[in-house]
Amino acid sequence: MKVAIIMGSISDMPVMQEAIDILKNFNIETEVDIVSAHRTPEKLFDFSKNAHTRGISVIIAGAGGAAHLPGMVASMSPLPVIGVPVKSSNSIDGWDSVLSILQMPGGVPVATVALNGAKNAGILAAQIIGSHEASVLNKIISYKEELKQAVITASANLK
Amino acid sequence: MKVAIIMGSISDMPVMQEAIDILKNFNIETEVDIVSAHRTPEKLFDFSKNAHTRGISVIIAGAGGAAHLPGMVASMSPLPVIGVPVKSSNSIDGWDSVLSILQMPGGVPVATVALNGAKNAGILAAQIIGSHEASVLNKIISYKEELKQAVITASANLK
Amino acid sequence: MKVAIIMGSISDMPVMQEAIDILKNFNIETEVDIVSAHRTPEKLFDFSKNAHTRGISVIIAGAGGAAHLPGMVASMSPLPVIGVPVKSSNSIDGWDSVLSILQMPGGVPVATVALNGAKNAGILAAQIIGSHEASVLNKIISYKEELKQAVITASANLK
Amino acid sequence: MKVAIIMGSISDMPVMQEAIDILKNFNIETEVDIVSAHRTPEKLFDFSKNAHTRGISVIIAGAGGAAHLPGMVASMSPLPVIGVPVKSSNSIDGWDSVLSILQMPGGVPVATVALNGAKNAGILAAQIIGSHEASVLNKIISYKEELKQAVITASANLK
Amino acid sequence: MKVAIIMGSISDMPVMQEAIDILKNFNIETEVDIVSAHRTPEKLFDFSKNAHTRGISVIIAGAGGAAHLPGMVASMSPLPVIGVPVKSSNSIDGWDSVLSILQMPGGVPVATVALNGAKNAGILAAQIIGSHEASVLNKIISYKEELKQAVITASANLK
Amino acid sequence: MKVAIIMGSISDMPVMQEAIDILKNFNIETEVDIVSAHRTPEKLFDFSKNAHTRGISVIIAGAGGAAHLPGMVASMSPLPVIGVPVKSSNSIDGWDSVLSILQMPGGVPVATVALNGAKNAGILAAQIIGSHEASVLNKIISYKEELKQAVITASANLK
Amino acid sequence: MKVAIIMGSISDMPVMQEAIDILKNFNIETEVDIVSAHRTPEKLFDFSKNAHTRGISVIIAGAGGAAHLPGMVASMSPLPVIGVPVKSSNSIDGWDSVLSILQMPGGVPVATVALNGAKNAGILAAQIIGSHEASVLNKIISYKEELKQAVITASANLK
Amino acid sequence: MKVAIIMGSISDMPVMQEAIDILKNFNIETEVDIVSAHRTPEKLFDFSKNAHTRGISVIIAGAGGAAHLPGMVASMSPLPVIGVPVKSSNSIDGWDSVLSILQMPGGVPVATVALNGAKNAGILAAQIIGSHEASVLNKIISYKEELKQAVITASANLK
Repeated sequence: MKVAIIMGSISDMPVMQEAIDILKNFNIETEVDIVSAHRTPEKLFDFSKNAHTRGISVIIAGAGGAAHLPGMVASMSPLPVIGVPVKSSNSIDGWDSVLSILQMPGGVPVATVALNGAKNAGILAAQIIGSHEASVLNKIISYKEELKQAVITASANLK
Repeated sequence: MKVAIIMGSISDMPVMQEAIDILKNFNIETEVDIVSAHRTPEKLFDFSKNAHTRGISVIIAGAGGAAHLPGMVASMSPLPVIGVPVKSSNSIDGWDSVLSILQMPGGVPVATVALNGAKNAGILAAQIIGSHEASVLNKIISYKEELKQAVITASANLK
Repeated sequence: MKVAIIMGSISDMPVMQEAIDILKNFNIETEVDIVSAHRTPEKLFDFSKNAHTRGISVIIAGAGGAAHLPGMVASMSPLPVIGVPVKSSNSIDGWDSVLSILQMPGGVPVATVALNGAKNAGILAAQIIGSHEASVLNKIISYKEELKQAVITASANLK
Repeated sequence: MKVAIIMGSISDMPVMQEAIDILKNFNIETEVDIVSAHRTPEKLFDFSKNAHTRGISVIIAGAGGAAHLPGMVASMSPLPVIGVPVKSSNSIDGWDSVLSILQMPGGVPVATVALNGAKNAGILAAQIIGSHEASVLNKIISYKEELKQAVITASANLK
Repeated sequence: MKVAIIMGSISDMPVMQEAIDILKNFNIETEVDIVSAHRTPEKLFDFSKNAHTRGISVIIAGAGGAAHLPGMVASMSPLPVIGVPVKSSNSIDGWDSVLSILQMPGGVPVATVALNGAKNAGILAAQIIGSHEASVLNKIISYKEELKQAVITASANLK
Repeated sequence: MKVAIIMGSISDMPVMQEAIDILKNFNIETEVDIVSAHRTPEKLFDFSKNAHTRGISVIIAGAGGAAHLPGMVASMSPLPVIGVPVKSSNSIDGWDSVLSILQMPGGVPVATVALNGAKNAGILAAQIIGSHEASVLNKIISYKEELKQAVITASANLK
Repeated sequence: MKVAIIMGSISDMPVMQEAIDILKNFNIETEVDIVSAHRTPEKLFDFSKNAHTRGISVIIAGAGGAAHLPGMVASMSPLPVIGVPVKSSNSIDGWDSVLSILQMPGGVPVATVALNGAKNAGILAAQIIGSHEASVLNKIISYKEELKQAVITASANLK
Repeated sequence: MKVAIIMGSISDMPVMQEAIDILKNFNIETEVDIVSAHRTPEKLFDFSKNAHTRGISVIIAGAGGAAHLPGMVASMSPLPVIGVPVKSSNSIDGWDSVLSILQMPGGVPVATVALNGAKNAGILAAQIIGSHEASVLNKIISYKEELKQAVITASANLK
């Protein structure tokens, strides 16, 4: 019941940190690493082939530009893979990251979240674990309640 | 351990059928219904609030145009929600469905798959179940093997 | 003869303030609140179901990203709903907000204005009231006259 | 309490007919004409300047390509103007019609509906009238009920 | 043999100044004014109907967002109209200005230049005059020679 | 006082024919040829360098995809060049043709018309000639009158 | 001096055949295979790691949607890799294929050609070989001459 | 065995410098110049026609906006031409540069790299030379090894 969070480059860390933080918040164990599809293909293979045998339940993969990491992990791992399109520096407004993660061919899904949406990737990973772990499901329910209270407070402050 | 497959309109069925078929293939129980965010908001509420109390583990929601169904279900259910952007008739090339499902705000993720990617939604739902059910995980592994064999056969036929 | 102005998050206020200001300018009563489709769905229901029974004539709803607020209010209220696409921080250049508000399915219209066009939302609300209130119609006519005079002055200054 | 439906070209009629039909359905009187911003600018002026003095409450204007009709009517009429972007033959996938109607400058709103969304334009016109005419408001409420029943029937047929 | 340069708002002046400057450079007389399609429609009519009777040969019109000025002038004037899409503050990356000027319907052309391309609008106006005025044609030829020399100098400096 | 109409490929002829036809309609002499920037660069040079010395006043150039013909002619000819973006078979919805003709750098304008807008290119060429030829100006005025009459007839038929 | 042509799916063959044909035309030996990044990752590894040791000089890789094949081959092979974006059935107008091949991160280039541009991929492969093989360079020169003659003939037929 | 690096304007140098640097890194001789398709067409001709006769093996051409330089060089040179789309100041988010370089017609390929991807253009040029020069091929293999080590170090630092 561990979530692996990998990213194509250390420069993706400021975005991906939000996934780590929210999972810590849910008390879910994480493992964080840099795995570059284009620069460390052997590591990509090792990681993807073996993740499910090492106690990992869900993989979160973030990458920018022609972002191949989430899809390549998904091609080799039987686990659910969540892709985070990162708006990197030379990206064309983020469209490249979004489309190269989202538009996977039939047979190899990637659960894509919003551009730079690492926080949501973390929540989704928790929901996947919560779908069969009552304690985590309850944390999700509480989290949604907190979101609601924050809006109610903001609304009250307005008046 | 049941997957609910809902869609905004009966006209989405030709696309969404692929999710039903692939889940049948994995021997995973499904429940199929039409739930329109815009035309049956009460049903949307009932469905979303209660799905996790009725033995459903994962929700697949398909919709086109300004597609609010997946996101609204995600706002009310603690379960993982998979969104399928459907390219409906008056869609602007599918961009509207894709962006209104993908670009969810922080706190409320939707696991988005490719445009018309209902088959991948079904596989992703199976992978989510497989993340804690060894029998399903093994079916995913076998499925990936079948995909590989089909390419190898096509390659052999080429020569 | 009151206009409700709601928004998905307090962070939308800098944009939405322009709607409040211009309606004040037309001496039209407003009611302002935060209603989040994704974080306070029950409040969304209450608000939408009852707005027309509380003396509200027009609803202005602003939201960013996968903006579901205007469309969900429109699904439950018989009143005219004006949608303001807000260019929020992780938006893909505003396209997500625009398309998820504009591209509503047949049966459930949202009167969409330009990206960040809250001022125009306020004017449109006044025009809707003015369509059956001569005093407001006359204010609109005067307002258009002021717009014209401003251009004429700018043109004169140029020479 | 009449709705004017104008369009830039007779070729827009197949799309715009849906606005006429739905308003007939609500028993709201309509007036239909062709007014081309680019080919009959004098008629555009006469129409826009006088519509509110001839018992018209709402104007629906449909046009394609660089669609200037809705915005130009809105510049001269104090009435609410609903714009219908029409996907005409040489349009660039409808983006031109959508953006040249939606992105009006501050001061001159156009209530824009979806690409080819003439039906929704008709419903929105009815809602505008309904905002101060209880009988029309009730028809809108009934119409929403019909939309719901159609989904419920489709859902029942599915099972 | 005069070129009229008009713009929808004084805020377009920083962009449009480049057209004025380059025409001054070619010794071509200019007339500059603010004419707003949406705020001063009567002035738009007067200007457009009469420009060709007052010694104007070419009209340059700049506008942003849902930019209707160039097309509306073109609908009423028999003169060549050059449109300059201006990237205004709430523009969607300039796409709105570009498409609402470029995509004119058959019968009413606007000679569109690049986004913020006022300098090129001025040169094009000069070329139009040069097409029948040998002295201006020669200035264009010299201008092209200057462009070339600047590149050759930059190239020499590089070495 | 002749207009040259060139195109990058014979496959552009169905689109470009409209320019030829409308100019014939205005009794303006035309010269038609195929000049490919990419396949006949020498011809491109000869054509562009000499057009103004052979009695040509205006050049219309149509091309699709990465459409370099209009811009390259404009780089070498002092005459006004009108560019027609052609939606060719492997074009990405016409965006490539539009942007590679429209977005010319400062110093080298191309008067761009709508996608497949060859008819408007012909009218614009006539307007350029009409800017200094009263007889052609009058034909343009009459042509606009015909456009108006066609709308008035269509409007009358509607009633 | 052999060119490998690989594609992600047999359904890409109608597009990729043009690369095979043009290389045959240049008398350059080819090797054709199906290598799916997502379905046969091991084959992808074997192919990419070893191509340069088996006498292959250039690799052409075609794929559609979230097209990872060209980039993944480029990550593992030191040879020049030419990417052909294929417009597959559920592609979003080809944008996904184009961006996921083109926007490679620094360090790992893919030589991208136009959407469905397999013919140009073949020519580019020949040019790469021709850059150090005079006989092939001469064939390219002759090929360009043929392209020119075809235009000259078409131009002559026009007259 | 020399690589020519040309660009349309000195303002492209900050981007293009990365190609020069990486080639220096590979000990490959370079020749750098400014060649503007639109301002120095004669130089464009001379350069393109003769590059292959002066010992140049590969041409890298960078340009922004309606970027015609790479395609025009490719039309006249039999050498492989690598195009670098530069995101210049008035570009529409880089789409114009990308599409006017990438979407070349059949017969005249340009090997396009990512927006501002000059570094990759340099590596690709080295790979082209490496395809027949074992010493350069080995440098590419070493370079890939360095890329891998940098990721492994970053990964180790993370832990």
